[in-house]
Amino acid sequence: MGSVDYEYPLGMNNVERVHQVEVPPPQPFFKSLKYSLKETFFPDDPLRQFKNKPASKKFMLGLQYFFPIFEWAPRYTFQFFKADLIAGITIASLAIPQGISYAKLANLPPILGLYSSFIPPLIYAMMGSSRDLAVGTVAVGSLLMGSMLSNAVDPNEDPKLYLHLAFTATLFAGVFQAALGLFRLGLIVDFLSHATIVGFMGGAATVVCLQQLKSILGLVHFTHGADIISVMRSVFTQTHEWRWESAVLGFVFIFFLLSTRYFSKKRPRFFWVSAMAPLTSVILGSLLVYFTHAEKHGVEVIGELKKGLNPPSLTNLVFVTPYMTTAVKTGIVVGIISLAEGIAVGRSFAMYKNYNIDGNKEMIAIGTMNVVGSFTSCYLTTGPFSRSAVNYNAGCKTAASNIIMSIAVMLTLLFLTPLFHYTPLVVLSAIIVSAMLGLIDYEAAIHLFKVDKFDFVVCMSAYVGVVFGSVEIGLVIAIAISVLRVLLFIARPRTFVLGNIPNSVIYRNVEHYPNAKHVPGMLILEIDAPIYFANASYLRERITRWIDEEEERIKATGETSLQYVIIDMSAVGNIDTSGISMLEEVKKITERRELQLVLVNPVSEVMKKLNKSKFQNHLGEKWIYLTVEEAVGACNLNLRPSKTNPKKDESEGWNNV
Amino acid sequence: MGSVDYEYPLGMNNVERVHQVEVPPPQPFFKSLKYSLKETFFPDDPLRQFKNKPASKKFMLGLQYFFPIFEWAPRYTFQFFKADLIAGITIASLAIPQGISYAKLANLPPILGLYSSFIPPLIYAMMGSSRDLAVGTVAVGSLLMGSMLSNAVDPNEDPKLYLHLAFTATLFAGVFQAALGLFRLGLIVDFLSHATIVGFMGGAATVVCLQQLKSILGLVHFTHGADIISVMRSVFTQTHEWRWESAVLGFVFIFFLLSTRYFSKKRPRFFWVSAMAPLTSVILGSLLVYFTHAEKHGVEVIGELKKGLNPPSLTNLVFVTPYMTTAVKTGIVVGIISLAEGIAVGRSFAMYKNYNIDGNKEMIAIGTMNVVGSFTSCYLTTGPFSRSAVNYNAGCKTAASNIIMSIAVMLTLLFLTPLFHYTPLVVLSAIIVSAMLGLIDYEAAIHLFKVDKFDFVVCMSAYVGVVFGSVEIGLVIAIAISVLRVLLFIARPRTFVLGNIPNSVIYRNVEHYPNAKHVPGMLILEIDAPIYFANASYLRERITRWIDEEEERIKATGETSLQYVIIDMSAVGNIDTSGISMLEEVKKITERRELQLVLVNPVSEVMKKLNKSKFQNHLGEKWIYLTVEEAVGACNLNLRPSKTNPKKDESEGWNNV
Repeated sequence: MGSVDYEYPLGMNNVERVHQVEVPPPQPFFKSLKYSLKETFFPDDPLRQFKNKPASKKFMLGLQYFFPIFEWAPRYTFQFFKADLIAGITIASLAIPQGISYAKLANLPPILGLYSSFIPPLIYAMMGSSRDLAVGTVAVGSLLMGSMLSNAVDPNEDPKLYLHLAFTATLFAGVFQAALGLFRLGLIVDFLSHATIVGFMGGAATVVCLQQLKSILGLVHFTHGADIISVMRSVFTQTHEWRWESAVLGFVFIFFLLSTRYFSKKRPRFFWVSAMAPLTSVILGSLLVYFTHAEKHGVEVIGELKKGLNPPSLTNLVFVTPYMTTAVKTGIVVGIISLAEGIAVGRSFAMYKNYNIDGNKEMIAIGTMNVVGSFTSCYLTTGPFSRSAVNYNAGCKTAASNIIMSIAVMLTLLFLTPLFHYTPLVVLSAIIVSAMLGLIDYEAAIHLFKVDKFDFVVCMSAYVGVVFGSVEIGLVIAIAISVLRVLLFIARPRTFVLGNIPNSVIYRNVEHYPNAKHVPGMLILEIDAPIYFANASYLRERITRWIDEEEERIKATGETSLQYVIIDMSAVGNIDTSGISMLEEVKKITERRELQLVLVNPVSEVMKKLNKSKFQNHLGEKWIYLTVEEAVGACNLNLRPSKTNPKKDESEGWNNV
Repeated sequence: MGSVDYEYPLGMNNVERVHQVEVPPPQPFFKSLKYSLKETFFPDDPLRQFKNKPASKKFMLGLQYFFPIFEWAPRYTFQFFKADLIAGITIASLAIPQGISYAKLANLPPILGLYSSFIPPLIYAMMGSSRDLAVGTVAVGSLLMGSMLSNAVDPNEDPKLYLHLAFTATLFAGVFQAALGLFRLGLIVDFLSHATIVGFMGGAATVVCLQQLKSILGLVHFTHGADIISVMRSVFTQTHEWRWESAVLGFVFIFFLLSTRYFSKKRPRFFWVSAMAPLTSVILGSLLVYFTHAEKHGVEVIGELKKGLNPPSLTNLVFVTPYMTTAVKTGIVVGIISLAEGIAVGRSFAMYKNYNIDGNKEMIAIGTMNVVGSFTSCYLTTGPFSRSAVNYNAGCKTAASNIIMSIAVMLTLLFLTPLFHYTPLVVLSAIIVSAMLGLIDYEAAIHLFKVDKFDFVVCMSAYVGVVFGSVEIGLVIAIAISVLRVLLFIARPRTFVLGNIPNSVIYRNVEHYPNAKHVPGMLILEIDAPIYFANASYLRERITRWIDEEEERIKATGETSLQYVIIDMSAVGNIDTSGISMLEEVKKITERRELQLVLVNPVSEVMKKLNKSKFQNHLGEKWIYLTVEEAVGACNLNLRPSKTNPKKDESEGWNNV
């Protein structure tokens, strides 16, 4: 590193101008507690707009906070209505076949999918703050709910209990979601990272597609397992049962749906082509079956759908053990997953249109809609990506498009259900498959691989866990790895040696800036994370090793012997009592080696604690500097020009006992 | 903040000399993986000493690595032997009564306490790297083991099975400990913070003391619960059963033991007074009972102890369900707790005497000693604090003092066990109480309260959890809170506004340095933690709010309108893909508000990822600076001197949809 031909850095001549590291002005305990609580739970400061307003205005603002409809309805125009009408009808045409399909994924009667697209959108239209979210059931949530509830009750043996359990789980999901919002615990959702969601969604989509092999191949018997191995075994052990009529129909419709999607993607003006395709498929499929009597040749159909609106289901809720435990557990898991999807979708579209989504408010809206849904024969709903994207492309202006969709579904429920009698299940499967293939976001996975290998590992663990294990296993693995990463970051922080960038007063990592030069007689270290119990002993070892290595290097090159260890604390955001003990220990270690420890720029939190714990006094205030430059300057004044190496302390320690 | 009368900071005239933020030199994936693995698992670089050595030397070094006795034995002198002999005899006199007492805490036959002070110290003397650790059973570990095993098997109903289960749990504890050391997972122990240990130990000591009320009050029936409420109920519902003889004896001995401790603490030369006190109490107590026949007046005695050395117990190990599950669980929990105690104790004394303890090596030694112990009728051993402190004070020089202790215990087992027949249990209880009172470290708790409120909360939760719940509950609560703190630090990082310190080129937090001045037209923010999925959306909200607040402030004061948002990334140690998306979003938000985003000093990891993800190109390389000073200088060149505030983007967004 050629630090023999070292020149004093710029600005070294005015070293006497040394700035003090101040102890931050003392703050009363409750003020700093209030500040921490505010930053933790109210980072968006929702009460700011209430400040200095008269009481009546405050009431109105409060009402608008919980029911944004009062904010936008007074300014609603005919212009908006036209746009929302078109969007609402478009999403209804998607909602009806999707609703029926997804209900089957949850092992529930198909009509529930329609019920769930009637009441919840009305609630959301009043309470939701997104203008683009289209409410409805989701594939992954349905699958997850189905698989978790099936463990407790067999949907074929006791369909009624199973149904009631589904309502109960929906209730708990809603209560949990609303509670998260009310208690401002939205940060829990933040712990589902983008990588986790990509892997998890991709895995769930794969599993859902595999499940569709049952109706596409026209199989009567099928595994209850959702993992790829059970499904493949089930499919390939009964090749003689495959029905070509069903398979042909299935692949034709998948091809049709994917081509319309491709077409609409290429020409966004024709978004309605792909939006209408599912309903078109349903109509075509039903007509085909009706005229060819294919239902008698192994093509299963939906059968009778009950006419009429949602029956009340309040009295159906199950509050007895052991079912209630299952319902609570299922509710929490599907609640948080569907919340994550709904909020992510809402945020993405808000970003395009440049308005803000309040995560906690959204949680309350989604939660309330599930609670009310559970009383009116609906199951888990949220804001599915596909439907919201269609809503957005169709040019919706406000949440009123959800009301239009709801009215369209209501009319269907009242008058049109008999038309679905002949709809073949294989068409529904084709609709599911084509929707799911869009969720397998391999491009995002490739991007993760390129940018961040660790995120890629998280993503693939979630995917593999879901596909080979189960939806729950995949989720748990991915979250565990993500949290582990955060913990490892704290447990093993990076430390760097800093060097002087030639002709400047700047000190930077010598590995990052190879032209940065070592300062003779000094070891300048930077620690890159808060010093906590989890890394205190690691840092002590690591700093000792840096000193060892530096002394060995100096011995080899014959430079000025090491006299100062300067630790740049700028990036140490916080310190706890274990961390302070660690610094005390490092001070002892350096003293034994006749080295002087120097701290640079402890931030306010750290400075406060160094002061309270008296470490500041032990070290001596003159050994704490505001910048590396000033520390180096001051040390240079006292540097012994050449010195025999200090006696290395007897590593055996026999003599100084 | 009076930033209207702003002067250009020093060094502003040479802004054209702007340093480049370099993309760090590319590193092959495997090289950086190797580096990360090394830092994670081999931070102490144990293989360094093997470098460039001939094979025979390498073998010798390897042998010395696993058996440090080969390192110190060749240099052992008569001088050392004299010191170790005194220390060994002193700790033996403590080990015998403590061993018997603690075995009773674990519901095991008293003789096991002696067995456990015979074999394990021999193993440790060969493998341990501490010179001061005195091996033996510990109160907290014994209590924990007793309470966990009692849940599976009642020690009174089936004492044989219970005993065998204890050996099995010890085996698993040893295997787990050694495995942690072999796989270099010592970092798990780091997650038990100092605050956790203070609270946990204090709570366990309180619980142990409460348990002693049984023998001190001479009660026959006693609760199985260890929590304070069960014990108090048990004590006060049978006040008529209290035996005054027993109580008087108990309090006299407690007073005696505490006074000797106090005396020895005041005059460290007389350390042996407190070290010998327990054995003296045992002798005095036994003589008293023998001559007064107090065993017939409600003073319970130990009774017969079998003569002879440890019988083998290899064939007693239980490997059948459901007992094995209990044994594994107990082994892991008590293994990690006793490891934490042993390593903490070893490290503290090594610190005083200025030598190094290798945590992973210690784990292998302690693990091996438990594995061998489980084959030879010993139960869980580690390095208890009290005994090691006595060893240290008695002037031990090497682990040979453990060998002396072991020989003394062996002689006791062979010849002296009958002498303990009349030892009253109440004396053992007094010994336990006086040892435990020293573990309730209220001074440390007060220090925690003063320096770090959060650590104090962790400590008190552990204490309250242990005392009111159970040992396991207290431990789980304390660890959960500690981990939560680390996660919260990441989830809610601090952000600061930086200002210029007058007459310098230094920029620091304006709250910490109230004289630091805002730079007109610029908002300089510092982020204090890695940007991860867990905080990405918080940071986006927070940065937006900083911009809002700054614009409001400017509107009120009429300063130069905001034109630049400068983010100092020096303290951002790492970033993941969610973090990069966040930066992209912040860039969009600032663009919409006609602000220019500027980054300062991204560290190498961050720069690498910004480059790979093309964010560097999107932002434009000229908007990334090496120092805040240079960024401010460059922005000042382009600052529009006065400007009407940019149109605030319509927060309703009706028009730009």
